[in-house]
Amino acid sequence: MQEIERKYLVLSEDFKKESFKNFSIKQGFLNTDPERTVRLRITGDQAFLTIKGKTSKNGLTRFEWEKKIDKKDAEALFDLCEPGIIEKTRYLVKVGDFVCEIDEFRGENKGLIVAEIELKKETDTFKKPGWLGEEVTGDIKYYNSQLSQNPYKNW
Amino acid sequence: MQEIERKYLVLSEDFKKESFKNFSIKQGFLNTDPERTVRLRITGDQAFLTIKGKTSKNGLTRFEWEKKIDKKDAEALFDLCEPGIIEKTRYLVKVGDFVCEIDEFRGENKGLIVAEIELKKETDTFKKPGWLGEEVTGDIKYYNSQLSQNPYKNW
Repeated sequence: MQEIERKYLVLSEDFKKESFKNFSIKQGFLNTDPERTVRLRITGDQAFLTIKGKTSKNGLTRFEWEKKIDKKDAEALFDLCEPGIIEKTRYLVKVGDFVCEIDEFRGENKGLIVAEIELKKETDTFKKPGWLGEEVTGDIKYYNSQLSQNPYKNW
Repeated sequence: MQEIERKYLVLSEDFKKESFKNFSIKQGFLNTDPERTVRLRITGDQAFLTIKGKTSKNGLTRFEWEKKIDKKDAEALFDLCEPGIIEKTRYLVKVGDFVCEIDEFRGENKGLIVAEIELKKETDTFKKPGWLGEEVTGDIKYYNSQLSQNPYKNW
């Protein structure tokens, strides 16, 4: 499946007042290569293995395959991940017809807040809320796989 | 789960007369790092994603996690694999109480035939058939992940 996503920096914590849900995410990588990223994620009682391909030339679409896996299996597989586990809180906020996912990072990426909107087609538009800053879609350094290797505190 | 496997070179094709089953295998790798190998495999109508960890110090055991996946998904994921797809025919032969898997490689690894016996415990023994040659258990160059990167024809 192809995902169409736009990514933005977040300017303030005002989005928290508009959030209808938040949850903690822990993720590690079995490969951080942007052409074949293999991500392990635990969120609440659920665990997923996700494989992502190369981003398209316009930076908007990326092949993504995801499979729910047993949480106990995921915990064992974390031991195999590359060093650099990502921990963050994800907030969900309605923005027009879309749901915006805002990730507030902890640990080595503390201070970084990134918002992502998944669109249905590349030409979809939405009204930008005041807390949404610069677009960083397609900028590899904001990929979680890259943040695990070169965290925000080192920038 | 931990796998206990011993691997051997194969001296002749005599094993084919003893084989009770054979089938074709195609596999690619989303990571060839021996500490976190991610393998995609299609065999017949079935497809699997397998993750393997580092081999133990004695070379006999290795963490292995496997999940059956949709064959169509696997075909799409092959496009993301590292260059170096492995194609081989696997023969199954009974050796004592165990089933021996013998892989006859095609393509860039043509000429290489490797046998693997999965044991129940590290102290299990079996009578070696005449066609079974030198033991190469734990020798990383015979890992399929490594054969995909540095195939037999280059040795």
